[in-house]
Amino acid sequence: MVLYWTMPTDTNPIFNLDTIVIVGPGLLGGSVALGLKAAGHTGKVIGVARSQSTLDIAIQVGCIDQGTTDLVEAAKQADLILLATPLKTFRDVMGQIADHLKPGCIITDVGSTKSSVLIDAHEQLKPEQLKYLVPSHPMAGSETQGPAGASAQMLQTRPCIVTPLDQSDPKTVAEIKDMWDRIGMQVIEMTPQQHDEHSAVISHLPHLLNVMLVQTAMEMGGMEMASTGFKGATRLASSNPTIRSDILTCNRTAILRVIEGFEKVLAKMKNKIDKDDRQGLLDDLNQAMDFRNHWVNQFDHRGESGKTDM
Amino acid sequence: MVLYWTMPTDTNPIFNLDTIVIVGPGLLGGSVALGLKAAGHTGKVIGVARSQSTLDIAIQVGCIDQGTTDLVEAAKQADLILLATPLKTFRDVMGQIADHLKPGCIITDVGSTKSSVLIDAHEQLKPEQLKYLVPSHPMAGSETQGPAGASAQMLQTRPCIVTPLDQSDPKTVAEIKDMWDRIGMQVIEMTPQQHDEHSAVISHLPHLLNVMLVQTAMEMGGMEMASTGFKGATRLASSNPTIRSDILTCNRTAILRVIEGFEKVLAKMKNKIDKDDRQGLLDDLNQAMDFRNHWVNQFDHRGESGKTDM
Repeated sequence: MVLYWTMPTDTNPIFNLDTIVIVGPGLLGGSVALGLKAAGHTGKVIGVARSQSTLDIAIQVGCIDQGTTDLVEAAKQADLILLATPLKTFRDVMGQIADHLKPGCIITDVGSTKSSVLIDAHEQLKPEQLKYLVPSHPMAGSETQGPAGASAQMLQTRPCIVTPLDQSDPKTVAEIKDMWDRIGMQVIEMTPQQHDEHSAVISHLPHLLNVMLVQTAMEMGGMEMASTGFKGATRLASSNPTIRSDILTCNRTAILRVIEGFEKVLAKMKNKIDKDDRQGLLDDLNQAMDFRNHWVNQFDHRGESGKTDM
Repeated sequence: MVLYWTMPTDTNPIFNLDTIVIVGPGLLGGSVALGLKAAGHTGKVIGVARSQSTLDIAIQVGCIDQGTTDLVEAAKQADLILLATPLKTFRDVMGQIADHLKPGCIITDVGSTKSSVLIDAHEQLKPEQLKYLVPSHPMAGSETQGPAGASAQMLQTRPCIVTPLDQSDPKTVAEIKDMWDRIGMQVIEMTPQQHDEHSAVISHLPHLLNVMLVQTAMEMGGMEMASTGFKGATRLASSNPTIRSDILTCNRTAILRVIEGFEKVLAKMKNKIDKDDRQGLLDDLNQAMDFRNHWVNQFDHRGESGKTDM
């Protein structure tokens, strides 16, 4: 059974909106645009980017119908505006559009941290605009960057976290949740704080560990022996440094707390290796393997159950 | 140009040996057996395992021609014996076979640590047997276990470290290196100590980080948001706990030294996040990305150059 939130099927007004504006039609923004089209949006999609070449590629790939480098001009026409630029630019983008949005324009985003979006929005947007803001975090990505790699497929069966504000309009929240659901994502609602703590654990710490593993190899050597295991264990170190350093800034507090949690885990592990506690180590490895295998099994079957539902 | 060590092509006597014995025809041992056949070995391959079901699967997959649970019986017939059981069993296996090997029987292994193999060999084998011992570490693997997943393909273009002893017979060393080369691996010679330090960096630390990331998530939560990034960053936590805990014991000293190196990297990273040193963080991420991308580019092209050579 599919729960379409509180909405009857086939009537989500978002898919009938005339103009959707994607600020930053890159890998993720472009994929959302393609997902909207695939899910039935027939209106116009305008992309806003700083460089014309990004817009040209986004048009070529079919993410957007038209492109402009003029944010304000695009914002004036928007019925829904999706922020998909690096996190650090959100404050500036919101400041630029606040005086130009149509009343009732829906605002959402794909930012990887959510407390920072809330702070930016409270500072930059008008109180009546906050009603139509529904921050979101579609959790999907790949090693590639830019609209050339965009695909609706990339979002399928992946989690999308939605973090409504206290003052968010319930109808708009339902519409946005339904939008992500129809794009094919697994919608989960939580508070911005929960989102940030959890994503520090399952996304920002993994990235940092991948980077620090590379740094350790840079310091200590051994690359002539590196193979597929090392390649996989450092994959996230090749993700966009600008986006990633923005996240480290925007989610600083939660990340530091999670690093402290990791340091405790590391100290225990090191102690067991130092003491040659074979049974303790074997128990730890078995427990971690079982926990991961159980999760992977659930995760890999999400796609199949999704298909049955649809 | 292919450098066949100091040997003329087509005359490596290993491929003409009557009987090769694989002790532990699992994923890696079985793959080596398949690789030997694919590279032209026409003699008999005997597998030794504790359980008949492993032997049955290994025969079914075509890794071995016959199987036995009697190590000594098999060792008596061996012209070359390959140890592919868990590291902790090497001492016992060597102790059992030492009195029964034919003079001049070549001994090699696939163990993930090499100083420990050296210690075991000096304790258990006879001085004249050490002459024909050439410890090896073919660096390949997968998430699966057991002979069912064995394939010659798995070894292709992967590094194989060879760590001869001071007393190793140069002709045997050349033959073993040529054997791995013909199986399709990239042969690298180094000392056991170099091997162990480097593999702690590029193999054992990655595994521990994957495990400790899972443990952090078990402590701090967030799994409902976990996606492909987390899945990839924890892949090694699903590798065989028995084999992995053996490695932690057998390579304890080098691993502890590498953990200390990692702790220094972590302290620097944490400090930069704490101080919100945006430029420092961006520089670090860029440097790590460039280092990894450069290596991945070389690594991914190994296969192609290998094919050209053959």
